[in-house]
Amino acid sequence: MVQTAVNYTPLTPLSFLARTASVYPDKTAVVHNDTRYTYRQLQHRVNRLATALHGIGVVKGDRVAFLCPNIPPMLEAHFGVPLAGAILVGINTRLSSPEIAYIINHSGCKVLCVDAELAALIRPVRDQLTSVETVVNILDGDIGEPLDEGTDYESFLATGTDALLGSPVQDENEPISINYTSGTTGNPKGVLYTHRSGYLNAMTAALEVGMNYRSTYLWTLPMFHCNGWCFPWGVTAVAATHICLRRLEPARVFDLIEAEKVSHLCGAPVVLISLVNHPRAKTAVFPRKLHVVTAAAPPSPTIIANMEALGAEIFHVYGLTETYGPHSICAWHEEWDDLPVDERARKKARQGVPYITAGEMRVVDDNMRDVPTDAETLGEVVMRGNNVMLGYYEQPEVTAEAFRGGWFHSGDLAVMHPDGYAELRDRKKDIIISGGENISTIEVENTIYRHPDVQEVSVIAIPDEKWGEVPKAFVVPKPGTQPTEADIIQFCRDHIAHFKCPKAVEFGDLPKTSTGKVKKFALRDKEWKGLETRIN
Amino acid sequence: MVQTAVNYTPLTPLSFLARTASVYPDKTAVVHNDTRYTYRQLQHRVNRLATALHGIGVVKGDRVAFLCPNIPPMLEAHFGVPLAGAILVGINTRLSSPEIAYIINHSGCKVLCVDAELAALIRPVRDQLTSVETVVNILDGDIGEPLDEGTDYESFLATGTDALLGSPVQDENEPISINYTSGTTGNPKGVLYTHRSGYLNAMTAALEVGMNYRSTYLWTLPMFHCNGWCFPWGVTAVAATHICLRRLEPARVFDLIEAEKVSHLCGAPVVLISLVNHPRAKTAVFPRKLHVVTAAAPPSPTIIANMEALGAEIFHVYGLTETYGPHSICAWHEEWDDLPVDERARKKARQGVPYITAGEMRVVDDNMRDVPTDAETLGEVVMRGNNVMLGYYEQPEVTAEAFRGGWFHSGDLAVMHPDGYAELRDRKKDIIISGGENISTIEVENTIYRHPDVQEVSVIAIPDEKWGEVPKAFVVPKPGTQPTEADIIQFCRDHIAHFKCPKAVEFGDLPKTSTGKVKKFALRDKEWKGLETRIN
Repeated sequence: MVQTAVNYTPLTPLSFLARTASVYPDKTAVVHNDTRYTYRQLQHRVNRLATALHGIGVVKGDRVAFLCPNIPPMLEAHFGVPLAGAILVGINTRLSSPEIAYIINHSGCKVLCVDAELAALIRPVRDQLTSVETVVNILDGDIGEPLDEGTDYESFLATGTDALLGSPVQDENEPISINYTSGTTGNPKGVLYTHRSGYLNAMTAALEVGMNYRSTYLWTLPMFHCNGWCFPWGVTAVAATHICLRRLEPARVFDLIEAEKVSHLCGAPVVLISLVNHPRAKTAVFPRKLHVVTAAAPPSPTIIANMEALGAEIFHVYGLTETYGPHSICAWHEEWDDLPVDERARKKARQGVPYITAGEMRVVDDNMRDVPTDAETLGEVVMRGNNVMLGYYEQPEVTAEAFRGGWFHSGDLAVMHPDGYAELRDRKKDIIISGGENISTIEVENTIYRHPDVQEVSVIAIPDEKWGEVPKAFVVPKPGTQPTEADIIQFCRDHIAHFKCPKAVEFGDLPKTSTGKVKKFALRDKEWKGLETRIN
Repeated sequence: MVQTAVNYTPLTPLSFLARTASVYPDKTAVVHNDTRYTYRQLQHRVNRLATALHGIGVVKGDRVAFLCPNIPPMLEAHFGVPLAGAILVGINTRLSSPEIAYIINHSGCKVLCVDAELAALIRPVRDQLTSVETVVNILDGDIGEPLDEGTDYESFLATGTDALLGSPVQDENEPISINYTSGTTGNPKGVLYTHRSGYLNAMTAALEVGMNYRSTYLWTLPMFHCNGWCFPWGVTAVAATHICLRRLEPARVFDLIEAEKVSHLCGAPVVLISLVNHPRAKTAVFPRKLHVVTAAAPPSPTIIANMEALGAEIFHVYGLTETYGPHSICAWHEEWDDLPVDERARKKARQGVPYITAGEMRVVDDNMRDVPTDAETLGEVVMRGNNVMLGYYEQPEVTAEAFRGGWFHSGDLAVMHPDGYAELRDRKKDIIISGGENISTIEVENTIYRHPDVQEVSVIAIPDEKWGEVPKAFVVPKPGTQPTEADIIQFCRDHIAHFKCPKAVEFGDLPKTSTGKVKKFALRDKEWKGLETRIN
């Protein structure tokens, strides 16, 4: 007995919008400032985008780039580009012009849709973008100055047609998007996502964090980042409402949470830090329970406790660009509800266990043996299953290397707890080896976060004649406080083993990557200047 | 770029138990009277079942029959049989011996696991079951008398091994189970379910009705019925707790809802009727919100309103054995919250729109054209997509007939509302044609349900010299009431068109099929005796 069209449909996130527009045509799909689109309108705009792309010669498998903040066209791109049969390349808006040029050229995008405010990033490199045949300028009010060429986005949509396209997906394992890694070193790599796995990850996102048609989702996580962890598709699947956010300003986030009764948002810990430390945090009353999904860097127990004190429920997930964003979640247990807040936060700071649809995750040694579940032995996190990328675009050797031994190698170091929950200790390249002992920079950071005067901290290895390496902390103090180096070191000595405590503390701002991660390599470069390049 | 084991895993519900047993090993998986199993224990019992089946020679694709009420072995069968690579045939416990023999022989089951209380159904036909090589007797306390042959279930499990088996699924479109239709006429047909679609339907079940690890699910729906609408897999996927229920006794249901803090249950309207009309309904206080999923026959607005008055939230789903149970759901809209209770109930009595993962559902005329969305024009419900069966086991011609025109034909007649929600009017064979006008027996029944003295009602066509057919109502009065024929008819004339009102009313019990549906054909047979057989 075989599958036919009667009993088999390729899985694709496109089906989510088709269903929701049919079931909830008049429900608000998208809010952006004073603009509100219904799901019927969203579907029609998406359909116009897809047919407009066809109109300029886009065919199956072509790549279409979007350089755009979290405003409606970026959401529409997540459906319109694949509906045209094309592959979405969402570009990180915080990259430099040469990085953006590299991505557009490497993926060979035929079309570039660019927000007017970001056009300045394109101008210096426009003549290098030889694959780009069509430019579309996205105008958001009068913000920015569009490029001198191409049409504007709304006029482009107007060239599309209203008759609804069916799904162009013949094989659910076709690519739906390419997401380039943020690549702290070397060129970014183009991570291929499939329709099938985007669909499954989106379903789980909705299921794990309890979204439904009553939910309102605020776009604090960039959609260019791992396709917004598949939430453009997941939020649409359950007919929740998308609240756009052009720029991450904490006051605006508080305004929108209150005005739009936001129930869900995602963001890196740096987003949570900016919220809990904002003056509004003292008076904010969330109109309903706020579900906050966080990842990207392990949130410190202190941040988790502070957010929960504000009335939020934190869902801690973990993954990489190569795993559609979240691959694991710190699945909660009811019996942890009654633990003291600090203990609860420590449980929740762990990266946990695979998503329901994610397949497997292990922590292994160099010979692919599982490390003991002793919460101490370091190993590398490896994953496999439907939540692992198809591969790196046009980089078969790099893909093979990442997939060696039949598992995707994350490059993250973790321990495995006795209950089977993984907890990250470091990026492989960040771990400190001091007198033969491993020191997790994350463990040291989490300790320092508990100091009442600390807003943000990053710990790296610095050279030391006796120990080889020792920890150094870079601290951003809370406004109005002036902690000293001795304060911080003493605080650490009160809480963790002495050999793990920083030998030096420096105060000031932290250099950040385009996705808000601290550039530890930049801190290290400064400290190791003139010395032998550190391995890892 | 191709899929490999790194980034592709066949979808199977087996992964749900593997994950949950790993993440929540000590959580209560199953409650049955005073017995409680954790998920680790459930996994080990399942693994022992699978390896015990291997031990007696069961190989990939073999069929294994379970004739068993909603007790732990029936749940274990949903994982253990497919984990052995075999196909589960869950048999309706209310069938007659010849019907059961037909099913076991037609599917060629090699193994029969039978509850001791149900052994009496097997004894008279045991010598006809030539494919059955092994009998396993399921003992539940001292209930019933096991067969004289074979081992008991616990001893059988003891022959299995502890080393955990991996998934035997190579192709996610392999069959996981065969569910035989209840077949009011003719032989039952064996509906093939696949691992892929069981997985997807189970995910949606959990998502649509909001189940998670805090949920407690009461087994009021038989697991033999469409694999319990895929809830054995969905409840396990989210690590909720299964509460077993050997027998559907309303007082026991109330006891368990209170004692186990039940949050979810499924059941046909007849189950809901037995609850709302029970004396306990007057004093019952649900310890937390009870989510009730109902289907199988359209629940009347009155029943919905009564259940909601008890503090339940009703989810109305619709489907057939051929669609893994639910294919559609009456997806709710927030703006309906504030409607008067009667209007809300009428909205909710509709069968609605496809499940998120279900694909498509239409209402079509004989030429496969969509009927107008006027809430009046009758057509047949047809479906296609991942939620439609693989086909009928070893009945390619019957399958082709059911799949004619590229859609599965449900045999149900419905109208389509202007908002795209389908509402069932009748089975094709039940519709009344009176003076050339169609009369929906469901519409007449729903009207009569609103009469305060009516507990249950069924309406059929009876012969009439002038009109060809006219409606007749069979009414079960509420205890302590004595409505008259004139009462009922007048009540109908006050609420619906006169030609739709019953011309006769009879009081007494209703004949039911094994799945609790009223045997309309039995009522019709009596009324039409001696007359030309009615078409349809």
